[in-house]
Amino acid sequence: MHSDVPFAVWSRERQQRVEDVLARALSNDAMPAPQRLGDAMRYAVLGGGKRVRALLVYASSEIQRSDPAHVDGCAAALELMHAYSLVHDDLPCMDDDALRRGKPSCHVAFGEAIALLAGDALQTRAFAMIAQSGVRDRSAAFVLLAEAAGASGMAGGQAIDLEATGRVLDLAELTAMHRMKTGAVIRASVLSPSDMTALQRYADAIGLAFQVVDDLLDVEGATAVIGKSAGKDAANDKPTFVSLLGLAAAKERAEALRADARDALVPFGDRARRLGEIADWIVDRQF
Amino acid sequence: MHSDVPFAVWSRERQQRVEDVLARALSNDAMPAPQRLGDAMRYAVLGGGKRVRALLVYASSEIQRSDPAHVDGCAAALELMHAYSLVHDDLPCMDDDALRRGKPSCHVAFGEAIALLAGDALQTRAFAMIAQSGVRDRSAAFVLLAEAAGASGMAGGQAIDLEATGRVLDLAELTAMHRMKTGAVIRASVLSPSDMTALQRYADAIGLAFQVVDDLLDVEGATAVIGKSAGKDAANDKPTFVSLLGLAAAKERAEALRADARDALVPFGDRARRLGEIADWIVDRQF
Repeated sequence: MHSDVPFAVWSRERQQRVEDVLARALSNDAMPAPQRLGDAMRYAVLGGGKRVRALLVYASSEIQRSDPAHVDGCAAALELMHAYSLVHDDLPCMDDDALRRGKPSCHVAFGEAIALLAGDALQTRAFAMIAQSGVRDRSAAFVLLAEAAGASGMAGGQAIDLEATGRVLDLAELTAMHRMKTGAVIRASVLSPSDMTALQRYADAIGLAFQVVDDLLDVEGATAVIGKSAGKDAANDKPTFVSLLGLAAAKERAEALRADARDALVPFGDRARRLGEIADWIVDRQF
Repeated sequence: MHSDVPFAVWSRERQQRVEDVLARALSNDAMPAPQRLGDAMRYAVLGGGKRVRALLVYASSEIQRSDPAHVDGCAAALELMHAYSLVHDDLPCMDDDALRRGKPSCHVAFGEAIALLAGDALQTRAFAMIAQSGVRDRSAAFVLLAEAAGASGMAGGQAIDLEATGRVLDLAELTAMHRMKTGAVIRASVLSPSDMTALQRYADAIGLAFQVVDDLLDVEGATAVIGKSAGKDAANDKPTFVSLLGLAAAKERAEALRADARDALVPFGDRARRLGEIADWIVDRQF
């Protein structure tokens, strides 16, 4: 079916696809909002981002050979959830980051109050997208997304992160934090179209790999390329996989996670090809 | 069935009922969260509030004569959504209110970052409660709640409110703002257990009445009784029904809305008794 389409082409096509779904979902027709709030939401979501979560949704749906149209809502929901978390993360009372995806953060562009509300409304919009999606089991997708985003998932991971700043975490604590903070939503991206427990191992591995590579890029990357302020974690005395393991061992860890992810996909054969390619892409990316 | 139970007894029983549901939903068993985040969420939700939205859910479910157990999740969801909005509203970048329900606001007690996350996670928890509830049509309840809370509802109303401060709104604009800001979630409370369009008129009327009475109490109430800082709206130069209509006409408006709400209930006879009593309670309350 897609064996002759290179990953770069497939991913560009799917990125464009979810961009269109998101643009429609945040348009004034689909979501009549006060102008400035709507503008802030669109600013925070559209025209940027790697769309890793959406790509995972599409790639995972290929395991069931389902029509991408059935998971468009799901893919968009995961991106909206991610975008809301970035907007709130960047606020002065949180990470206080002025730069995001190479542009001024939402609160720099629109003010703190509107950014707070835009984040709030993006979370709401994420759940609305699931309600309107054609995903196989909507109730399961709801529960998955709610658990991934809430106090036991992303928001909980943020809370641990907040309190960990300036404190020494060991590897188990750091791993547990990231499993909640970013891993839970990545896991939901993989599992929402097809709740196959066999995919959990893959999802766990790439979720963690994503964070390890993020930490590597924070040290080795250039601000212009990664689109946010480089070296910020070290400056904030935040524990990272690099500060804990050192550069070489962190790279080895990323490779081990890639191997683990790929290994988990073996039983699915060619249907898991895109998931495998995403694992490579996550580990090899320079941005 | 309940014709001999006075409203004060019925409402106390239902308030206690939703309190128990909320306490379970936010317990460490049901929601394993980092200690401080969980504490902030429980602080913001439990042991306070009039539970108007939960009472509306229970009262509305009596129209269909459904078991209160079927709508417990829905009642809790509406209260969680309301509590999240209060936590974010009180933040320094929004209304900057240090007092809520007679206690220090969440950010005063827990710090801004944890309050932000607690609000975020309470919204997530609200959607999770719908997913787990026994309400008749879960998908419809989801859409209703998402539309009520999002950019076209509560969050949108907040955005309009922000930009209206210090500007003169006319009555139509003020009404439209409150229809979004508080009216939408109150409407969702009435409609989520039984999406009868005939109840929309009732829901619209009490939603607006609630706000008119809030504005009256901000002028006439005592801080100790209403549990938040009185006179704050006038001090902030916020447009209110009292500043626009004057005290006497605002009172007349509240009475007209009560009459309108009661009138809309006539076709439902005794099954709408509690909804009627809630309309009275909203208009007559001194807190």
